[in-house]
Amino acid sequence: MDILKERRTIRKYTDKNIEENLLKELLEAAFRASNTGNMQLYSVVVTKKQEMKKKLAPFHFNQPMIEQAPVVLTFCADVNRFNKWCELRNAVPGFDNFQSFITAAIDAVIAAQTFCVAAEARGLGICYIGTVTYMTKQIIETLQLPEYVVPVVTLTLGYPEEIPPQVERLPLEGLVHEEYYKEYSKEDIENIYSHKENLEVNKKYVAENKKNTLAQVFTDIRYTKENNEKFSQTFYEAIREQGFLK
Amino acid sequence: MDILKERRTIRKYTDKNIEENLLKELLEAAFRASNTGNMQLYSVVVTKKQEMKKKLAPFHFNQPMIEQAPVVLTFCADVNRFNKWCELRNAVPGFDNFQSFITAAIDAVIAAQTFCVAAEARGLGICYIGTVTYMTKQIIETLQLPEYVVPVVTLTLGYPEEIPPQVERLPLEGLVHEEYYKEYSKEDIENIYSHKENLEVNKKYVAENKKNTLAQVFTDIRYTKENNEKFSQTFYEAIREQGFLK
Repeated sequence: MDILKERRTIRKYTDKNIEENLLKELLEAAFRASNTGNMQLYSVVVTKKQEMKKKLAPFHFNQPMIEQAPVVLTFCADVNRFNKWCELRNAVPGFDNFQSFITAAIDAVIAAQTFCVAAEARGLGICYIGTVTYMTKQIIETLQLPEYVVPVVTLTLGYPEEIPPQVERLPLEGLVHEEYYKEYSKEDIENIYSHKENLEVNKKYVAENKKNTLAQVFTDIRYTKENNEKFSQTFYEAIREQGFLK
Repeated sequence: MDILKERRTIRKYTDKNIEENLLKELLEAAFRASNTGNMQLYSVVVTKKQEMKKKLAPFHFNQPMIEQAPVVLTFCADVNRFNKWCELRNAVPGFDNFQSFITAAIDAVIAAQTFCVAAEARGLGICYIGTVTYMTKQIIETLQLPEYVVPVVTLTLGYPEEIPPQVERLPLEGLVHEEYYKEYSKEDIENIYSHKENLEVNKKYVAENKKNTLAQVFTDIRYTKENNEKFSQTFYEAIREQGFLK
């Protein structure tokens, strides 16, 4: 429990390698997590070679963790393996659709997050690389993912070079609803976001970005409508091209 | 680590209630997990009242865990709260699209799975209820979810009535690819699935379902093409109606 409570995302790693047996242990633990119908509709591509990290890096906007981490893992929604099994067993699979993608994607994320908890329990640090759902087609090509396989989570993994301070979270009552979703009033929103907005680190962040409010840093710089719409299209296309929207 | 390795899904619960402070602790731990840009684009609806569980049950195909568990939790992708904050802060959000749904949904699943690990660390048992992405519209209505909120994970939670045997998993090498995705040969598939197929419990399961192969139980009975396509449409519609496909 303390591991969960005290965790931080780690973006800088020592050059210490991760033992093969340790990596196996973490993956075994990840695959014990819940999954739909015990079909295990996911795969993990493990990237260790520097040459492969260099190929992946531009499709993750050259975030330095990709080349710096000893191991990069890409968790994929995968019904390809299951389909191949069905073919050999006189069964006709019907997984070439959106629901099957969502099911497999949720299961891949559950496995990925369980991997993260296991890694942190063993003193490693992880970082989620959200760009995997942006330039998805290029990542599919680079990792040679066949039809019915779509990457949904990329993680970087390594021993922490430094332990950064823990970042803030919104108050619990801002995220939890009892029985029904209670729509937020103006006052609720003020209460939920005031701590976050008043942190020195966030005030500095607003100033550095030459914005008037913290919210504007998100909408105007980090997650713009234009980019969100562009990446909506690229990700949707990737799912379609991989065979999930028939 | 042992908690992750030794876990089982729990479908039968004692009637012992879950203390409010314990539930809070688990949710706090869940919300410490990684999320995109620390925007925390998720919400959790906690269902404890028997009357509400009764309302939800039919939309989860009357799976008995819903009414039997002391607590049911529905984790939702939620950009509604963030949008409301933006409006108050002179920021124009651009999250009414597929990418933003995917981002929020992944973050909701990460939080949900972290909740599960925390719960299991405290001696509780959980079960994922996959039907949340099937009759999604009805669940949205029941929980009164506003625009820009879509449920992606439902969990049942309680103290285990019994500890069932651990179910099998596919061998690690069947799920992990080194550097590139290595396409499966016929022999690979035989090796990956043979242990699963030869378990007495699975042979019995095939016989009970009057099928010839285990794969057929999945394709012909549990996850049919017809149902997958129907639920693809209902879930896609739910995402669209909640405002994510503009």
